[in-house]
Amino acid sequence: MKKFDIHEDPHRRFNPLINEWVLVSPHRATRPWQGQNEKIHTDALPEYDPTCYLCPGNVRANGESNPKYESCFVFENDFSAVKQEPIFFEEDSKPTFFKAKPERGIARVVCFSPRHDLTLPEMEISSIETIIITWQKEYTDLGSVDYINHVQIFENKGSVMGCSNPHPHGQIWAQSSLPTQVEKTQNSLKAYYDKNQSNLLIDYLQEELKLKERIVIENEHFVALVPFWAIWPFETMIISKRHITKITAFTDEEVTAYASILKQLTIKYDNLFETSFPYSSGIHQAPTDGELHPEWQFHMHFYPPLLRSASVKKFMVGYEMMGEAQRDITPEKSATVLKALPEVHYKNK
Amino acid sequence: MKKFDIHEDPHRRFNPLINEWVLVSPHRATRPWQGQNEKIHTDALPEYDPTCYLCPGNVRANGESNPKYESCFVFENDFSAVKQEPIFFEEDSKPTFFKAKPERGIARVVCFSPRHDLTLPEMEISSIETIIITWQKEYTDLGSVDYINHVQIFENKGSVMGCSNPHPHGQIWAQSSLPTQVEKTQNSLKAYYDKNQSNLLIDYLQEELKLKERIVIENEHFVALVPFWAIWPFETMIISKRHITKITAFTDEEVTAYASILKQLTIKYDNLFETSFPYSSGIHQAPTDGELHPEWQFHMHFYPPLLRSASVKKFMVGYEMMGEAQRDITPEKSATVLKALPEVHYKNK
Ligand SMILES: O=P(O)(O)O[C@H]1O[C@H](CO)[C@@H](O)[C@H](O)[C@H]1O
Ligand SMILES: O=P(O)(O)O[C@H]1O[C@H](CO)[C@@H](O)[C@H](O)[C@H]1O
Repeated sequence: MKKFDIHEDPHRRFNPLINEWVLVSPHRATRPWQGQNEKIHTDALPEYDPTCYLCPGNVRANGESNPKYESCFVFENDFSAVKQEPIFFEEDSKPTFFKAKPERGIARVVCFSPRHDLTLPEMEISSIETIIITWQKEYTDLGSVDYINHVQIFENKGSVMGCSNPHPHGQIWAQSSLPTQVEKTQNSLKAYYDKNQSNLLIDYLQEELKLKERIVIENEHFVALVPFWAIWPFETMIISKRHITKITAFTDEEVTAYASILKQLTIKYDNLFETSFPYSSGIHQAPTDGELHPEWQFHMHFYPPLLRSASVKKFMVGYEMMGEAQRDITPEKSATVLKALPEVHYKNK
Repeated sequence: MKKFDIHEDPHRRFNPLINEWVLVSPHRATRPWQGQNEKIHTDALPEYDPTCYLCPGNVRANGESNPKYESCFVFENDFSAVKQEPIFFEEDSKPTFFKAKPERGIARVVCFSPRHDLTLPEMEISSIETIIITWQKEYTDLGSVDYINHVQIFENKGSVMGCSNPHPHGQIWAQSSLPTQVEKTQNSLKAYYDKNQSNLLIDYLQEELKLKERIVIENEHFVALVPFWAIWPFETMIISKRHITKITAFTDEEVTAYASILKQLTIKYDNLFETSFPYSSGIHQAPTDGELHPEWQFHMHFYPPLLRSASVKKFMVGYEMMGEAQRDITPEKSATVLKALPEVHYKNK
């Protein structure tokens, strides 16, 4: 009988962060693609777009004008998915099938730059530092609101990721409850911490640094790697080397190192298919419920959909929706490809 | 303080099938859309396409010719995500972070019709019955293979759902393990069954039939409804009224009733935006591990991505990937809209 070869044979891998499996089919990477191709936007964007509701000085949907901001600019989301208004609610005593609870929250938009045409990989390190400092401030501000227990910082980049405006920006949704994915992660981190009196992601990082098979970038304070259990073709995770539960605990040096790895990683992404690389990214860190949460470790997920060119993405559909996530290239292969990419942005070659 | 109104206020709902929450933002349905529009394919397809690898008589990627089939045609997937080959594997004794296991399986493609241009809503009931009978046969055949414990029947329809060929077809991925979503569902069904000595979905269906708020179609043997915890804008679930753990237990009458509700539901879907409505659908039923599984109840999920027109879909991205699924219109509203749609296909008006 053939001996199991993880680089060749179909297998499942286990994600200890959310307790779920992913189906890996290494041999399938070569199948021909006859499906939908994504539109590629190659038109250069202007530095300022008079019709963009995020550009400095322009008017937004609700009639307000943006200030003539010069670095980051944060405002309340005009179409927030959650509301600040308190709602009176009596828990149903027999809610077996129809369990619902009002949810309070605050949603904000973070413009990364006054420049309409500058994404993370093309920004100065100092401008990325400003974004990180803005995230720190928002985590503190929103987290200190009495009814806010979780602050989700994220970015949707590219129209294929549902982003409706190319002006570089991210979002923050802060709310009373721990969202599903965060709660799953917390449960796993907590169970590991209670059992081992150490941090799951810190311990995992030590192993990865020994194996060096999935590391894409390493600097003094951060590592970017393709997790062993990655779902998306070029999924990565940035982890801080020091045990840090939340973004506000960074030293100045760590802020710079984080800015630097963000720039380097997104440059590699853009270089992969010589396109402005779409992704959703998001930071997972300690909830803001007032507890210490030593089980948490600051990390940032990047979920990019592209599979084999600027126009061919991986679809998480039928089998993935009914069964489980499935990937064609191994995380090791993806890490090797990303690692080998140049550190200079393809536009500056 | 304002009293909670489930039709107006942001809230979370609980999905008892997979133990996860969804964020519902009813007020958000009116936000303007400035993002990506999907391509709409309006060209009429030919009945036979000489370049289609699924049409009768044509040659597939592996060089084999399809027979001149006249109803359903099943073949082994040429680019299967799983393989039949047995793999020798010794479980690691210390696999904390790098847990992986070989996975054996069989993947098949089911062509629904020799006609290149006929999707479910436009087929005769008798042709849909043939598809159901094919699914029964495959469930039995694949399920009886000694190492196959789960048979996932599904369909990806439309290029926006990663479907690479408009020729009407579905897929079957059969494998050794219970896929993640199925395992979660089984755990919930089992816990409910052990506690109540009754079936979760049968009990849920009784409640829904009393409330009549989310029922889209009902016939003698089946109900199509928008689940209370639906994630996708027009998500539905077809449930059999009788307690049936698997597709092979249907009577002839039930096969006809199932074919009929499949046709009616997909006609309503096509009529919603007067387009060939994209979705992923899939059947959840008892595993084929030889156990009785009274906790299971046959049901079929439909996950359609379109939100407000043939070209505007809901994106499950940033917040949804990092936090939890979020929807803008309530399931009750979606059910009302679907219910009110004509029963005659828009092309035959
Ligand atoms: O098998 P197909 O139709 O080529 O591929 C499609 O369905 C599969 C199963 O849901 C997915 O894994 C693929 O991402 C999708 O493109
Ligand atoms: O808030 P936006 O950018 O308008 O909308 C985008 O991001 C949201 C948060 O991930 C999603 O819920 C939307 O489906 C997506 O289109």
